[in-house]
Amino acid sequence: MRIKALKKELASSNLDGYLSTNLKNVYYFTGFSSLAEAETLIPLNGDPILFIRELELENAEASSKNCIIKVVKKDETAIKKIASVVKNFKPKRLGLDDLPASTYLKLVERFRGIEFKVDMDLVWKLRIIKDDEEVRYIRKAAKLADAGMKTALATIKAGVREYQVAAEAEYAMRVAGSEGVAFDTLVASGPRSSLPHGVCSDRKIKEGDVVFVDVGATSNGYRSDITRTTIVGKPTRQQAKVYNAVLEAQEEAVKAIRASVSAREVDEVARRVIKESGYENRFIHSLGHGVGLDVHEPPKLSPNSKDVLKTGNVITTEPGVYIPRKWGIRIEDTVLVLKKNAERLTKTPREFV
Amino acid sequence: MRIKALKKELASSNLDGYLSTNLKNVYYFTGFSSLAEAETLIPLNGDPILFIRELELENAEASSKNCIIKVVKKDETAIKKIASVVKNFKPKRLGLDDLPASTYLKLVERFRGIEFKVDMDLVWKLRIIKDDEEVRYIRKAAKLADAGMKTALATIKAGVREYQVAAEAEYAMRVAGSEGVAFDTLVASGPRSSLPHGVCSDRKIKEGDVVFVDVGATSNGYRSDITRTTIVGKPTRQQAKVYNAVLEAQEEAVKAIRASVSAREVDEVARRVIKESGYENRFIHSLGHGVGLDVHEPPKLSPNSKDVLKTGNVITTEPGVYIPRKWGIRIEDTVLVLKKNAERLTKTPREFV
Repeated sequence: MRIKALKKELASSNLDGYLSTNLKNVYYFTGFSSLAEAETLIPLNGDPILFIRELELENAEASSKNCIIKVVKKDETAIKKIASVVKNFKPKRLGLDDLPASTYLKLVERFRGIEFKVDMDLVWKLRIIKDDEEVRYIRKAAKLADAGMKTALATIKAGVREYQVAAEAEYAMRVAGSEGVAFDTLVASGPRSSLPHGVCSDRKIKEGDVVFVDVGATSNGYRSDITRTTIVGKPTRQQAKVYNAVLEAQEEAVKAIRASVSAREVDEVARRVIKESGYENRFIHSLGHGVGLDVHEPPKLSPNSKDVLKTGNVITTEPGVYIPRKWGIRIEDTVLVLKKNAERLTKTPREFV
Repeated sequence: MRIKALKKELASSNLDGYLSTNLKNVYYFTGFSSLAEAETLIPLNGDPILFIRELELENAEASSKNCIIKVVKKDETAIKKIASVVKNFKPKRLGLDDLPASTYLKLVERFRGIEFKVDMDLVWKLRIIKDDEEVRYIRKAAKLADAGMKTALATIKAGVREYQVAAEAEYAMRVAGSEGVAFDTLVASGPRSSLPHGVCSDRKIKEGDVVFVDVGATSNGYRSDITRTTIVGKPTRQQAKVYNAVLEAQEEAVKAIRASVSAREVDEVARRVIKESGYENRFIHSLGHGVGLDVHEPPKLSPNSKDVLKTGNVITTEPGVYIPRKWGIRIEDTVLVLKKNAERLTKTPREFV
């Protein structure tokens, strides 16, 4: 199905084939997940070819499907091996995903008769719509993230260091079956919570701190993403007000999500609620992003996004308000876009805790 | 010092400046670690400029040094912001690190008067030699990996699943202060140990299994890498023989490491020992690789490497023998290259356990 969908895109873009060096794309098309390097060449007419390294042969044979395997030996280069295939099917125009510039320049140099078109969007058109199998994996990753969040929230108290919270959350996800974190876990406490990208430090959490935790799990390569914010002790009036505004912004945004709505409109719904509370200048990032094999994918939910939501998109909604050097509050869920509404895949309670 | 060293390279390559979009290079030159996107433009004559996104301003101001910060606003593109700087210093030839081809093509399109040279090797020339601060961080990461390995080895027994071993090892590293794993933890048991890149599965470890664990930690962005192999129960004669050959290969290779020796020669030392045991065809990968901000860096220790080792290189030595569909044995340490010898940074006992 994915190969067929790609070939349809190739035909309409007037391309004779598509060469991927991006390992997520290689996995997407063949089912083979390399830890080293691998490439796929998918001719418009013909079977996909998977180029792998000798030491991954047994893995590739066990996991790949619908493709011919070619082994790049220790004393060969991938380009040489690709050339031996290209020689036979003689493409005129080849699509490329977003490979490193050095590889691109080598290809241009090596295959002078071929016109190359760097066009990652062609693959994003497919990857942006998750099929049933992909939704099943993201659903599992979301459940694992909920388990991590539950543990994180139970661990947070005065005296505990940020990275200890991360350790407990990551352990809970791992023993429940996560393949690893979906991204670097963020635990930001006290004034550090005013940094939207605060990662983890060895700071000891104190009474009265705002603490946010942003965590994700991985299942079959697919990711999830969730943020919750808590306060150790009693919130100030301002903190309670902002928390409620962020929560309402997130609720309203999720309610606005369905197929055919523009991503910009959903962002606007959240931004309007934050504006009513008087903090629109402190909501300093986009509302959300797609999630899949990558943790940041299309579509983008932002004031200048041109994306229109479609059934099968999986996206985050994560409004946040950050008071510089004081504290910050963010609430985020991973949601699945459906025809008439959205389904939350991460389900940790959002009420003030 | 790093900026000064880069400028020396720029001068000898006849470049007027260097533009980095690689976040590890940006961190290397400025101390600022972005979770999103960031760029540095380092003119041959003038102060480095760091381009950051608005939501990371507070982070960037706190952590960056020796550079001018320019904020790319929400409604701007980085290229537009870079153009506003380029306009003033008018470079003729700019070096680039290994950026995505799409960005490269945009730069070529936008700056028609400038000749671009993709030259990541120019930065590798600097990053390949670790300074005292970097060695300190890798030393810490190595110590954390030893803690993870100790826990992994204590966890392995019949009935335990592979990912549970990974969970315990990762937790041990995290609570000891690791920022996260240096790479996906590998725990491969029984026939899965014959896969050099076997990641983790939910396979239950059985009596008689060979199990290898390949794990790494991170400190201040710097990584470590260690592998140990154990056997649950009594090894067969063949397993004991191969274990001893791999161990001897690793010992001899580490003894051969010092500044001015070619990387190919060190690989050859290990390969010769494995050959004496009759398994040279089952040592199907390179002996090792550099480790630093990336887990796979130059130099490369392989039969066709052209690298010559230098004081301050940090490299792995990891001979392995893999019997297809049966079992595999690998022993790996992260070592620091010194003038007259090598220092092992990972120190978990290597004797048969």
